[in-house]
Amino acid sequence: MTQEPGKLASKLGLSFKNPALVKRALTHRSAEADNNERLEFLGDAVLGFVIAECLYEKFATADEGVLSRLRATLVNQTALANIARKLNLGDFLILGSGELKSGGYRRDSILSDALEALIGALLVDQGMEVCRRWILNLFAEQIDSLSVTDWRKDPKTRLQESMQARGLELPVYILKSVVGQPHDQSFFVECRVSLTSETCEGVGSSRKKAEQQAAEKMLAKLIQEFGFKP
Amino acid sequence: MTQEPGKLASKLGLSFKNPALVKRALTHRSAEADNNERLEFLGDAVLGFVIAECLYEKFATADEGVLSRLRATLVNQTALANIARKLNLGDFLILGSGELKSGGYRRDSILSDALEALIGALLVDQGMEVCRRWILNLFAEQIDSLSVTDWRKDPKTRLQESMQARGLELPVYILKSVVGQPHDQSFFVECRVSLTSETCEGVGSSRKKAEQQAAEKMLAKLIQEFGFKP
Repeated sequence: MTQEPGKLASKLGLSFKNPALVKRALTHRSAEADNNERLEFLGDAVLGFVIAECLYEKFATADEGVLSRLRATLVNQTALANIARKLNLGDFLILGSGELKSGGYRRDSILSDALEALIGALLVDQGMEVCRRWILNLFAEQIDSLSVTDWRKDPKTRLQESMQARGLELPVYILKSVVGQPHDQSFFVECRVSLTSETCEGVGSSRKKAEQQAAEKMLAKLIQEFGFKP
Repeated sequence: MTQEPGKLASKLGLSFKNPALVKRALTHRSAEADNNERLEFLGDAVLGFVIAECLYEKFATADEGVLSRLRATLVNQTALANIARKLNLGDFLILGSGELKSGGYRRDSILSDALEALIGALLVDQGMEVCRRWILNLFAEQIDSLSVTDWRKDPKTRLQESMQARGLELPVYILKSVVGQPHDQSFFVECRVSLTSETCEGVGSSRKKAEQQAAEKMLAKLIQEFGFKP
């Protein structure tokens, strides 16, 4: 049973001048036309910026590649859905009947979108500073646990070292296909590890780049699903 | 001959407490280790946010898809490089000797990165409000010329109508390849128009999605290179 949107704001310690914004942020497009998609667009943008600024300040010597990877670890659908679950956002979602029956309140994409929309709603209602503080509070624990030294290494190296440290078999990379003209090819590579039967695919303009991307995705999966330290 | 970074700031009407930030923003990685890549990371994030917020406010009834497309029209490498050229940023770039010889000061990617870095430098030095105002000023003309009604339509429709309005042949979409397992396929589609021999490729989980992406890229190319109205 969906709970009142107003309750969520007070549970989260947020005050809104316009409570209709909270309701809209929690409303999935399956429920009604006045839904959270616009707020999600805004929330996604402010979230990306606030985390970028925070990482820029915190890791004063990290290069751009490291900063991008750190941000991708913090801000992605799985990570946002996990935060949304901690906030019990699922109990407050307003879903259409189809989504309700199929358990949409548990789905990563819907939870993640609702969290971004709530961030957007807070920005509209309370302005940048309140919004920034709430974002940094939501991510405080994860930001504190980031270690920049690990991220200086490329994803393949990090994945390999993660496996070695746990006494697991090394990752395997399989070239699945090569597409395009000789001067403009895309390589598709699959990464497999012994910890899960799920695979991750990377694509790139060289086999090496595709392997790095596949390794990066696999690392993100292991961080989110198996609690690897980022 | 590269001009003094300090001159650029005064030409642009910007004042910096720390002039070293301007120099860093103009320094390409080919020139030295203390280059603009970190500032570019920050500038890219704040730019994306400021434009998103502006579009959210200006187009109060546009849905998320329209807002995303409008933002992609405003903020992309070609568009940023064009703004950088208007500001004569190329005259102030600090490049390594290789990039200098090969005309790096004219290259879209280098110009676009330097503009983003300058935006980042302004944020660091002068704070959010000054930075926001400068961004909105840089994009004022383009934002004013955006028409939301055109953007309600999907990219294929818009591309087709653009061609028809000019009495040109209709766009052609060619399925180039299909990659992956039956339940998880990627379709690669090429879009061709009679106006240019260059093609644009789209990729998507269905043929239709790939066609829409290819049309979107082709539209962006025509807007930037042939002065189509966005």
